Amino acid sequence: MRRSIATVSLSGSLADKLTAAGAAGFDGVEIFENDLVAGDLTPEDVRRRAADLGLGIDLYQPFRDFEAVPPGVLAGGLRRAEHKFALMERLGATMMLVCSNVSPAAVDDDGLAAEQLKLLAERAAEHGIRIAYEALAWGRHVSDYLHAWRIVREADHPNLGVCLDSFHILARDTGPYAIETIPGEKIFFLQLADAPALPMDVLYWSRHYRCFPGQGDLDVAGLVASVLRTGYAGPLSLEVFNDIFRQAAAMRTAQDALRSLIALEEQVGERLGGASRPAALAPPPRPVVPSGFAFAELAVPDAGPLPRLLDGLGFTRTGTHAGKPVDLWEQGRARILLNRGSAESQDGPALGAIGLESPDPAASVKRAEALLSPVLPRLRGPHDAPLDAVAAPDGTELFFCRTRHPDHTSWTDDFTTGRRASEDAGGEITHIDHVALTQPWHHFDEASLFYRSVLGLRPHDSLELPDPYGLLRSRAVSSEDGGVRVALNVAYVGAHGGRPDAAWQHVALASRDIVAGARRLRAAGLSPLAIPENYYDDLEARHDLGTERHELLRELGLLYDRDEYGEFLHFYTATTGRVFFEIVQRIGDYRGYGAINAPVRLAAQHTRAQRVPPP
Amino acid sequence: MRRSIATVSLSGSLADKLTAAGAAGFDGVEIFENDLVAGDLTPEDVRRRAADLGLGIDLYQPFRDFEAVPPGVLAGGLRRAEHKFALMERLGATMMLVCSNVSPAAVDDDGLAAEQLKLLAERAAEHGIRIAYEALAWGRHVSDYLHAWRIVREADHPNLGVCLDSFHILARDTGPYAIETIPGEKIFFLQLADAPALPMDVLYWSRHYRCFPGQGDLDVAGLVASVLRTGYAGPLSLEVFNDIFRQAAAMRTAQDALRSLIALEEQVGERLGGASRPAALAPPPRPVVPSGFAFAELAVPDAGPLPRLLDGLGFTRTGTHAGKPVDLWEQGRARILLNRGSAESQDGPALGAIGLESPDPAASVKRAEALLSPVLPRLRGPHDAPLDAVAAPDGTELFFCRTRHPDHTSWTDDFTTGRRASEDAGGEITHIDHVALTQPWHHFDEASLFYRSVLGLRPHDSLELPDPYGLLRSRAVSSEDGGVRVALNVAYVGAHGGRPDAAWQHVALASRDIVAGARRLRAAGLSPLAIPENYYDDLEARHDLGTERHELLRELGLLYDRDEYGEFLHFYTATTGRVFFEIVQRIGDYRGYGAINAPVRLAAQHTRAQRVPPP
Repeated sequence: MRRSIATVSLSGSLADKLTAAGAAGFDGVEIFENDLVAGDLTPEDVRRRAADLGLGIDLYQPFRDFEAVPPGVLAGGLRRAEHKFALMERLGATMMLVCSNVSPAAVDDDGLAAEQLKLLAERAAEHGIRIAYEALAWGRHVSDYLHAWRIVREADHPNLGVCLDSFHILARDTGPYAIETIPGEKIFFLQLADAPALPMDVLYWSRHYRCFPGQGDLDVAGLVASVLRTGYAGPLSLEVFNDIFRQAAAMRTAQDALRSLIALEEQVGERLGGASRPAALAPPPRPVVPSGFAFAELAVPDAGPLPRLLDGLGFTRTGTHAGKPVDLWEQGRARILLNRGSAESQDGPALGAIGLESPDPAASVKRAEALLSPVLPRLRGPHDAPLDAVAAPDGTELFFCRTRHPDHTSWTDDFTTGRRASEDAGGEITHIDHVALTQPWHHFDEASLFYRSVLGLRPHDSLELPDPYGLLRSRAVSSEDGGVRVALNVAYVGAHGGRPDAAWQHVALASRDIVAGARRLRAAGLSPLAIPENYYDDLEARHDLGTERHELLRELGLLYDRDEYGEFLHFYTATTGRVFFEIVQRIGDYRGYGAINAPVRLAAQHTRAQRVPPP
Repeated sequence: MRRSIATVSLSGSLADKLTAAGAAGFDGVEIFENDLVAGDLTPEDVRRRAADLGLGIDLYQPFRDFEAVPPGVLAGGLRRAEHKFALMERLGATMMLVCSNVSPAAVDDDGLAAEQLKLLAERAAEHGIRIAYEALAWGRHVSDYLHAWRIVREADHPNLGVCLDSFHILARDTGPYAIETIPGEKIFFLQLADAPALPMDVLYWSRHYRCFPGQGDLDVAGLVASVLRTGYAGPLSLEVFNDIFRQAAAMRTAQDALRSLIALEEQVGERLGGASRPAALAPPPRPVVPSGFAFAELAVPDAGPLPRLLDGLGFTRTGTHAGKPVDLWEQGRARILLNRGSAESQDGPALGAIGLESPDPAASVKRAEALLSPVLPRLRGPHDAPLDAVAAPDGTELFFCRTRHPDHTSWTDDFTTGRRASEDAGGEITHIDHVALTQPWHHFDEASLFYRSVLGLRPHDSLELPDPYGLLRSRAVSSEDGGVRVALNVAYVGAHGGRPDAAWQHVALASRDIVAGARRLRAAGLSPLAIPENYYDDLEARHDLGTERHELLRELGLLYDRDEYGEFLHFYTATTGRVFFEIVQRIGDYRGYGAINAPVRLAAQHTRAQRVPPP
């Protein structure tokens, strides 16, 4: 199927937008009128440039407030239309979007609307142009697609069909299944957008919060499956109005957009099943869901306090890389690499790479590549085990590994063995429970789609966490069994690179005896992040855990949460550079991340960091 | 009346919040529980620190999900309450806010709610504590204040009253007049917030978009007048949840908040009228609405291209300041100062000061001072005329002047006269029509309140303008007769100091013959900002102005708009540093600013500036 994108979805000048859409690999674009009107390129320039980039001009849009009006207003509309038809001929565009009238001049008369749209289609036909009529969710009289279709059917002209838009249809909870009652050849165009479930007026929601399919909460795949069942064979075209994408770099947004379409096509193919799946929807390689964390690698300018901290947490340095200044620290299946060879970051130590246990590392990379993730070059020495890696949107390197598995070379083979830790040597810490990565605020949706589509992780609900200097948004993605959990946090809007407090990262280590772990840390002369007494007073008010347990939590600085499945105990280490550790113990089948305690943690970290907001 | 603020309205640690509230001059605070729980200060520390800052602790809040529950749940609620009463004794707080139950455990039974609240009030009374019961707009069964009052009346306990919150009442369109049926002594507390009219769910709206009174669209003053008519004599307390204030510096937000309360009290006093106005509401000096612009002063590192540009626009250099490197350029009543003595700005020329014609400059300053505006020191030489000036929130200096008025010394007396321009010498430009100032994105509401309250200007609707790199928000404020118009623009969220394209400023000059003006500029060898041909093609489609007029607009690069009152022609000069000029001609009684053409202007400016978005 043709893959298209509306120019309004991308930032910059029209030339920038075309370049980005072409570079990402789209087949066509919708030209959004304002992008043309405000730009220096003549329609002929646009036509030529698009052709050079391999892009068709699949739609010119929008033409507004035309149908169901008194005769005097109609004359003005036809006059406007003739101007636009002339323009489209210069552009080489043959399809015009007409959206349902929102003006007070519109009359609630379907017969009149049909008659006038037919007249428009006749005029369009003289220019070889077709009209796609779309019901805006906030149209004055026509606001759902079946209503638009009834008018188009009544007008009965070969150059008039409907344009369907997933946002307008799904935002109104109109059942998409009725789409299948429309003949495929009368669906002239299909526009796609997703949106997060936000409780607001549909127009405001549409103008500010649309996102690419898979980034929101609408069932776009189900809708596309219904459309394809009608025999529709036109473009799948993304049309997204989003405050953040408007500010982001167009090249990057276009790639994010195309990744979204590829993942969407895969889902649609699954909905349709093998037999009725259009040949055009050849699926990418299946995702290979990682089963756990192989390691977390910290880029450290020098070892600094980390070896002492890891030692205090019960880790053992078990090896050093044969060819690079990288140390391996282990405890159970939790492995931390300290890479002293990395370029010094201005923020100090940072989490640079994550190893994921994959049943088939090569297949993991193929999947990532098919979803447009940058595959990292294998810069390895003659003795290194092959490592397959891709870059996540925030630059974190993801390595796909099979650690110490008989059928596969293991990255651990590159490390000269010091003391070899048994994987069940009785340490309190058993494995990496999750990692939390702060995303740049304008790449949050992209990151969430990346982890979902490339790794096959399941996104959880978004949360808002009050920080002393703004609201943070947090969304976890995880594998079904919880073997891999990544918490994506986004800094408050407006925070930027110069403010390291907005970019904390952490590695959460699962403990089977957090009380022993906390005591061990203290015995090593190290303190966990100090938790205020007020927190414990409040905890006692909220939960009656018995005097002894309350006193233990308070003494050791442990935080507490519970849900309907179990309990959660956790504490944090001090922050070094951008990084800190969290030690967690899940009791029963607790499913969360202790988010209720995040504001307390954030306040304590700000107090330590002594950071202040901008003036 | 006591002026209070909830700590949740300010950013930072609880210590930061108290310091800011004290420094701004508040009398008291509401302690938001999370601020205490997450902080290091013990309740005793908070009590001491507040006392040192002259702040009372007027409320402890919120206590949630207490009333109208089954017996087992009640026991837990009473247990929680006893913990909080003990905490409040340590804090020295004697009023606790209980908000209406939102939990699924709540029963729809007013009798049960009254009975359990009475029990709570009895327990509170033992600690000398009073309970203020508030209906949350999203309460499960109790969501309006009259319902809360009926329950309180039924419970009938001296330690139980209602808390009224302007947001919860006005957001639900509940008529505030019924407040006057509640006895004043049963209104225990009054919380105030405003909000812009935004079409969204009330909970989402409340949590993200509240603002200080006068910054939004709710009639907070009317509500407060109703409350005061009951005899209520407690605090006026600001409680604002706002995504932007959470990120801004607390000291600055606290001052903005107190300015809002002062302006609110003035409005309330007017509503109540002289006789029933409480003595505590002594009004500040009346605003002195400026009648026009006296001058615009550009800070320029060196003269650069500006003299040639001003000459091309028909200005004459009429004088130089006796003691400073400042040139005066005049045409009609339009006056531009080029100040070559200012420190070089990294962005090049910038609009540093604006002169406003005031009927009484000294009274203008008194008003500004009463509303907490920084009055600028008068650094003048022995021969300078006195100039009264204050700083606007974005740092622009506002000078209050009486230019060449027989009863008053004139700032122009400081300028040695070169060629003296007559004020009606037949130039096309007659006066400054408006100035447009881009505000830092986190100070937009503050700026809007400043111009409204300090200068008595009237705010117009907010507009959204699509720029190639984000949505800009724009709001004009003007005097009734349009003599002073200021367009406040806000850069897209996230844009910051390092991106000068987000901080353009401009001076719009009113012309009585824009065609002659445009020809004159071209004759001087200068070009206006180039407008794309596509704009004129689209204009012809939208409006039928006759071939001749369309050709004239196209030839001269003029932009066009109209509204129901008249027409508007305008063009822009090239940008120098942060500044450009706009030439406008209002035909008939056109009231706008040509906002429909702003996207075309912004795209053209970006094309010229060759600026790119961040990666």
